[in-house]
Amino acid sequence: MAHISLPEGLPGIRGPLAFRPETAKPLSDLAEALLRGPSTLTPAERELIATHVSARNDCAYCRESHGAVAAALLGDDSVPRQVATDVENAPVSDKLKALLVVAGKVQQGGKSVLSEDVERARKHGATDLEIHDTVLIAAAFCMYNRYVDGLATWTPTDPASYRERGALVAREGYTGVLSRIREQTGTSDPRR
Amino acid sequence: MAHISLPEGLPGIRGPLAFRPETAKPLSDLAEALLRGPSTLTPAERELIATHVSARNDCAYCRESHGAVAAALLGDDSVPRQVATDVENAPVSDKLKALLVVAGKVQQGGKSVLSEDVERARKHGATDLEIHDTVLIAAAFCMYNRYVDGLATWTPTDPASYRERGALVAREGYTGVLSRIREQTGTSDPRR
Repeated sequence: MAHISLPEGLPGIRGPLAFRPETAKPLSDLAEALLRGPSTLTPAERELIATHVSARNDCAYCRESHGAVAAALLGDDSVPRQVATDVENAPVSDKLKALLVVAGKVQQGGKSVLSEDVERARKHGATDLEIHDTVLIAAAFCMYNRYVDGLATWTPTDPASYRERGALVAREGYTGVLSRIREQTGTSDPRR
Repeated sequence: MAHISLPEGLPGIRGPLAFRPETAKPLSDLAEALLRGPSTLTPAERELIATHVSARNDCAYCRESHGAVAAALLGDDSVPRQVATDVENAPVSDKLKALLVVAGKVQQGGKSVLSEDVERARKHGATDLEIHDTVLIAAAFCMYNRYVDGLATWTPTDPASYRERGALVAREGYTGVLSRIREQTGTSDPRR
């Protein structure tokens, strides 16, 4: 059971997003800008970074949700599964491997990111903007993961629900998700 | 030296905010909603939560910055200093002590927050919304701290600069800070 009374039937982050619309808006805008906005990293690459960090933070809801978005974008669910646990042997580019290592260091703590980690990414073609976005995606999932688990929200165990939602987010993005929560709870502020 | 080329002369998070305006907007909106928006926790109480989490994450820039905002709001700089390191003996209410313990658990990881931690806060009068906001402030500073240190941004060592900026944020809030960065860098998008 969640630590506070959340709207019923909404899994993971969707419960607290519905509970507190004032913070839901910037949280969704940040996810949209980071994971779907203009970038030279593909949406799938960014979802894989989110999946890896969520796995490291042991946040099953975020790992499964973002793994499912990556799977929908790639048409392959083996890649997110491997990126979650074994970056060096995952079937991704050398650049993305190096960025995933940077993301893993951010998950440990900001000061864990070393110049040589950044240099490795740069050697494989990563730009300043890509390094910036990797650090911020990893940092942001250290927030989202703690938000989801720190309130003890509901984590569905049925893989089909993640697949369905992953396909939806792949199509509509994160701003779309927020509109759907509002529709589902029947008002623009579901607490009222 | 920072891991990427950031606009010069901007300390801490202000460098990356200027570097990437698309993510600066939701990051500032989130800080404004969490730390200054409508809440039954005072702005000073919320800044103390931010200070405590930043101290636990060993992020000197955020600890000093938010400690200085709390000091400006309280007219006393000893309280944030004590809250940073010694919650149980800090001169704050029992409710805030209990919420600071919840925030410290979130810093360790979402699953570290136990029902008894939440119950302690509730026993001292904390509402669901206050518990929600404490968890999200703590989670958000696990992001901001990693963003600042994961890019190895510039941490000024002069206490006066934090005091001056703390007083400014106490007066103008976080949306005001973003406008000032835009003015200082001379354009709405400082990279262009």
